Amino acid sequence: MISDTIAAISTAVGEAGIAIIRVSGTDAVKETERIFKSKTPLTEVPTHTVTYGHIFNPKDGIKVEEVLAIVMRAPRSFTMEDVVEIHCHGGVVSVKRVLDLLLQQDVRLAEPGEFTKRAFINGRLDLSQAEAVIDLIRSKSDRAFNIALKQVDGALSKKIKQIRHELIELMAHIEVNIDYPEHDVQEMTSSLIVNKSTAAIEEIDRLLKTASEGKILREGIVTAIVGRPNVGKSSLLNALAQENKAIVTDIPGTTRDVIEEFVTINGIPLKLLDTAGIRETTDLVEQIGVEKSRNALEQADLILFVVNYNEPLHEDELAMMQQLQGKQTIVIANKTDLPQQVDLKVLYSHFPAQQVVTLSILEQEGLDQLEKAISGLFFSGTLESNDLTYVSNVRHIALLKQARQSLEEGKEAAEVYVPIDMIQIDIRLAWERLGEIIGDAVSESLIDQIFSQFCLGK
Amino acid sequence: MISDTIAAISTAVGEAGIAIIRVSGTDAVKETERIFKSKTPLTEVPTHTVTYGHIFNPKDGIKVEEVLAIVMRAPRSFTMEDVVEIHCHGGVVSVKRVLDLLLQQDVRLAEPGEFTKRAFINGRLDLSQAEAVIDLIRSKSDRAFNIALKQVDGALSKKIKQIRHELIELMAHIEVNIDYPEHDVQEMTSSLIVNKSTAAIEEIDRLLKTASEGKILREGIVTAIVGRPNVGKSSLLNALAQENKAIVTDIPGTTRDVIEEFVTINGIPLKLLDTAGIRETTDLVEQIGVEKSRNALEQADLILFVVNYNEPLHEDELAMMQQLQGKQTIVIANKTDLPQQVDLKVLYSHFPAQQVVTLSILEQEGLDQLEKAISGLFFSGTLESNDLTYVSNVRHIALLKQARQSLEEGKEAAEVYVPIDMIQIDIRLAWERLGEIIGDAVSESLIDQIFSQFCLGK
Repeated sequence: MISDTIAAISTAVGEAGIAIIRVSGTDAVKETERIFKSKTPLTEVPTHTVTYGHIFNPKDGIKVEEVLAIVMRAPRSFTMEDVVEIHCHGGVVSVKRVLDLLLQQDVRLAEPGEFTKRAFINGRLDLSQAEAVIDLIRSKSDRAFNIALKQVDGALSKKIKQIRHELIELMAHIEVNIDYPEHDVQEMTSSLIVNKSTAAIEEIDRLLKTASEGKILREGIVTAIVGRPNVGKSSLLNALAQENKAIVTDIPGTTRDVIEEFVTINGIPLKLLDTAGIRETTDLVEQIGVEKSRNALEQADLILFVVNYNEPLHEDELAMMQQLQGKQTIVIANKTDLPQQVDLKVLYSHFPAQQVVTLSILEQEGLDQLEKAISGLFFSGTLESNDLTYVSNVRHIALLKQARQSLEEGKEAAEVYVPIDMIQIDIRLAWERLGEIIGDAVSESLIDQIFSQFCLGK
Repeated sequence: MISDTIAAISTAVGEAGIAIIRVSGTDAVKETERIFKSKTPLTEVPTHTVTYGHIFNPKDGIKVEEVLAIVMRAPRSFTMEDVVEIHCHGGVVSVKRVLDLLLQQDVRLAEPGEFTKRAFINGRLDLSQAEAVIDLIRSKSDRAFNIALKQVDGALSKKIKQIRHELIELMAHIEVNIDYPEHDVQEMTSSLIVNKSTAAIEEIDRLLKTASEGKILREGIVTAIVGRPNVGKSSLLNALAQENKAIVTDIPGTTRDVIEEFVTINGIPLKLLDTAGIRETTDLVEQIGVEKSRNALEQADLILFVVNYNEPLHEDELAMMQQLQGKQTIVIANKTDLPQQVDLKVLYSHFPAQQVVTLSILEQEGLDQLEKAISGLFFSGTLESNDLTYVSNVRHIALLKQARQSLEEGKEAAEVYVPIDMIQIDIRLAWERLGEIIGDAVSESLIDQIFSQFCLGK
């Protein structure tokens, strides 16, 4: 049982109106009280109430900050422990000095993800739900957020538990057959194994089918805009970014050379890579830049290849089209506001019609076609269906595949009447793998590793 | 009377555990309730309580986010209006979608500083207190924060009100003398004016004396580290930054060429400018870099000029010392762990002894001397005295100077027995200028301008 008291800054750091320090643990209220002064002591206020007061330094009694303290007592809190949230002024100094004073009490700095880890350990969330919390925070689009929110709500857990329930029933049946072989003929049990395994495999396949789309929604489609100078590459970038200006985000750790920008086109998150100026050059610095651009191109899930509607295709462009074969590409003939000079037939000879879009960024015409083309490439069928539970987490995908593999082996063994106590091992393995998704019997080190990916203060 | 309902994101934007959207106005609770579902309706929960619930889209009823809502009813809130704080998951998407839904109700996006502006208009804070709120948020050091906190508490307001109280008494006396000249001889009133003005001028001077120090504490001392290569410039930067690692902040808008970093030395905020490599060069790109470094040097309030204790002075360094005359400079002879080769007498011939520091960054020796030297240059007397009210705001400084000027003119006029109804104009002007500091009779456009400097959501 964990009981020590932890604290961390739970809001993003920066100049802002409010910042929150979260304290959680058995002594959260008592320890905060040591540096907090208010009309009613924190230890006496009712749960889920806001108390106005001051943070002071217990050594000299000097007032350090004016704050609101919110007390949420166990088990009605995120961690299911006693929680105090201290709301101070935003900015760097305020949160730091309050946190410093807390850490001078019997409180230690929380590790990244430790609040959510406690929510998991205390049974508020299972592992797949806890993992989705970080997806919620990191999500770059509404759809990714919806998927994560469903997973926090337990949509994936529910499916996993259903399949596991079927498997445990099957295992019980096998157990009975092993202990009381007279009760049942082995052939009947084998046939049951085949049927139940097939059903479970189908369920897992249904989940795995969502994996690639789920992963894209979670991480964004890596998209490189390429093309010769003056075809409107930068305008396209601006047009895409402007239309979705409000949710354009800068990703920390952006390298100086390849600019990454997130935009959302029609609900689909694109991670745009700015790959300006791929061309032959003798300048050494430029060569390094071009090399980086080429790498970006190779990483990309999607290429937006821009050509000029108002000019015949250049030999560089013809060469480029050869190189782009086999890559997910959308060709954009820009500047339809000017007379047509480009030979669209050549484009159609290289790419399917639905992947060639003519538009005018200047006149904002045809951008909806581009959106359709992108959706068409990556999503089959309707995306917004509420029934769909997307599997987007790499760990979950791997475990589903392992469970499927074990079930497949069990099924095949049952089909050739391998002794059922042998088969039971396969079924148990599948059951265990599925259990790891929701955190059943996972090792402590795995748990540590999963939560270490969280940001501090969650 | 303002009553419309406003909302904004009040925490810094970024990946984090929690983000807050603040809603304020007469209908804050009612409008939030339109998109919020909980066991007890928000309109019925007691003030200052935390309610768990969901944000949903009223158009389709679909759940959008899992949140906590904190209701703080008027007048017990920051704005003295009804306030709802919606706590959602940190990250970009969550806050955006909740805010979007709010703005589809009868709620508009708050302007920067509008919450604090309402706190001012509704009488919770006077103008100097409200202005200090943004100083709290922006403060880069504990001391700057303490000064701002005292000002939010009303320390400056109290002093200003005291001076104004004296002046209004004086004005009343003059009024009586004008209306009932038989009551008093003009000479006595003139002498009273001289005495009272002198006292008020002394009070104002006491405040103005803190201005330069207050400004430095508020904005940081712009500090350029210069010197030849290999004297330990970078080591010094690292040593200064490391010692204070936790409150090193990156300032948004940092240009790529001149790196700015905030560190706090012994409570004094330094805005370090990294000015590597000033030297003659024929390389065009490097020339631009050197030019930028020279500009940084000119902006600097303080130069840390590093030389090598283990080497004789180079002719470049001798030239540099000439250039640095008239600038606040501390000469640092680094590498005292090696034998002395530098001629300290030459250094002492250019700079006062207390501005020459010998130290070893490698062995972490002498850094405390550097701290003392910096304090000595910028702060006279004890800094931490609790009685001191620092004036750090440029607007306040200007108004104090104007008030002082009017008092001076009134005093001089009284000394040569100018008719007291003429002098009264000066006294009234001083009284009005001081009033503007605390927001008495300031124009609407000025108020707008002051609050527009705030960040969104405060």
